[in-house]
Amino acid sequence: MRIDGLQYANWSEKIFRQMREGNVDAVHVTIAYHETFRETVLNFEQWNRWFEMYPDLIMKGQWASDIDVARETGRTAIFFGFQNPSPIEDDIGLVEILHTLGARFMQLTYNNQSLLATGCYEAEDAGITRMGRQVIKEMNRVGLVVDMSHSADRSTIEAAEISERPIAITHANPHVWQPALRNKKDDVIRAVTENGGMLGFSLYPHHLKGKSDCSLTDFCQMIADTADRFGVAHLGIGTDLCQDQPDSIVEWMRTGRWSKEIDFGEGSAAAPGFPPMPPWFQDNRHFGNIEQGLREVGMNDDEVAAIMGGNWYRFFSENFGPSAP
Amino acid sequence: MRIDGLQYANWSEKIFRQMREGNVDAVHVTIAYHETFRETVLNFEQWNRWFEMYPDLIMKGQWASDIDVARETGRTAIFFGFQNPSPIEDDIGLVEILHTLGARFMQLTYNNQSLLATGCYEAEDAGITRMGRQVIKEMNRVGLVVDMSHSADRSTIEAAEISERPIAITHANPHVWQPALRNKKDDVIRAVTENGGMLGFSLYPHHLKGKSDCSLTDFCQMIADTADRFGVAHLGIGTDLCQDQPDSIVEWMRTGRWSKEIDFGEGSAAAPGFPPMPPWFQDNRHFGNIEQGLREVGMNDDEVAAIMGGNWYRFFSENFGPSAP
Repeated sequence: MRIDGLQYANWSEKIFRQMREGNVDAVHVTIAYHETFRETVLNFEQWNRWFEMYPDLIMKGQWASDIDVARETGRTAIFFGFQNPSPIEDDIGLVEILHTLGARFMQLTYNNQSLLATGCYEAEDAGITRMGRQVIKEMNRVGLVVDMSHSADRSTIEAAEISERPIAITHANPHVWQPALRNKKDDVIRAVTENGGMLGFSLYPHHLKGKSDCSLTDFCQMIADTADRFGVAHLGIGTDLCQDQPDSIVEWMRTGRWSKEIDFGEGSAAAPGFPPMPPWFQDNRHFGNIEQGLREVGMNDDEVAAIMGGNWYRFFSENFGPSAP
Repeated sequence: MRIDGLQYANWSEKIFRQMREGNVDAVHVTIAYHETFRETVLNFEQWNRWFEMYPDLIMKGQWASDIDVARETGRTAIFFGFQNPSPIEDDIGLVEILHTLGARFMQLTYNNQSLLATGCYEAEDAGITRMGRQVIKEMNRVGLVVDMSHSADRSTIEAAEISERPIAITHANPHVWQPALRNKKDDVIRAVTENGGMLGFSLYPHHLKGKSDCSLTDFCQMIADTADRFGVAHLGIGTDLCQDQPDSIVEWMRTGRWSKEIDFGEGSAAAPGFPPMPPWFQDNRHFGNIEQGLREVGMNDDEVAAIMGGNWYRFFSENFGPSAP
């Protein structure tokens, strides 16, 4: 089973066919960065059209059991998430509305301070806000997973503690391996995994040791080391694949409408665009390389299966439905 | 089984308890008259709160099978609908979005011309519009029932012909019995029922012979006569109960934001408010009176059961899901 914990591609029939070629059973797809509620609904509408147009390639994913259906029918199940809480605006009632529409992950922040928590690019991290505590409780109730991929350390650790259900870092790597601002320090990973949560390993070059030149072996050895330290059961893949996106999109991701100036995020004025993906992971057809790489660094069949999809499957099955009353 | 094809009450725990006292298993509840999409979402949010606050009395209804669950657990299943297409604004993609949120009926018009069809108060009825044809097709695809309760005759007959699935007049009576503008002429009822559709009999006094003074026997004899003429399988109840609403609400229903002048609709300057309900149907506890009245005008057990809920149950079970591909 192959499940990807995050992608944000410029979707097309070509990519849907590549997902089938790569035997990708499910993907968590970002449908909001800075969108308002209404704009996010337009993105749900766009996906409804794709489900109607390509019923043999993709299907809407709501529950882990939809992954079984996708596998039985040779399709990829698409699960939705937001990289920012902008879709709920200032209205906690939208948490349940968006879950009903199919949202399954929501980051409490992107890079900046949000109404709920602090993003990883802020100078000060004041932790989870008053509204943040209320929204985490509501997300727990309905089954919308707290994702802290872009949040600052204190906010992330507090979210893991406050949340009564496991949380996730869908796409990041250990800071100890590659000290990028977006990668996660040990105490952050520990807080998330001890609470039953998940870390999805990112293939976004800024998160890799050596960036685009990172070797498959280095990447897979890092996964094996992280499994030794935090337990293989809490780890999956979250490629952060942004396939076929023009560079204007990385500008939208970083700057949204919050600034009139350009923010280069993990890039720079000299290299403002998307960095090239490593040659061994260009698109959805290359998941087999990671699987092979994990074997070559000594992981056994069960461990490889858990990392490639089994852990996300279990996590989806336990965290997408309403909490027990 | 007791199913009401339309209510628009000022909802409260008191009314939810009266629904249980009256053994009402399911109600189609109006949650939009003139609301925009976002305002309609706020109304879904309000209902989510009520489902959370009163889990022993009410539950969200999405499918006919939810009525079985409601009966087994002693609750009333609440199904949602709109009396106007204003919630979809000018965006056909919102049809599926709103169906996903739980909408199961949508009137193509309230009293005025809409983007889709003509309402019963317009001087000219030009029939189903270009967008109307597209929206009917989309409603058919996803399982959102076309309701023509407030639409003009030609528009209604055309909707019945264009729709590939049965349509409904959720709340109105035969014009031949009480010649109110909102009651339906024979050729309209015929077009709807011949297409497999449903007529729900209204208890709104302006739709009754003798208005608030209409007798239970007169009402039930009218139902028996309509069954003889159009077939008992196409008939149900749609009380149009607007319990505990202040008169400001009937002004909102009639005038929305489309006029700065007051439109009295079926009322008048002398009697602008809600008319008093007949003494034998004051609220949800009185469904038993109708059941008894139907027996007294000679309907047998099967016919009474069909009218009181069996027909709506069958209609719900056939028309709320996606069309076969």
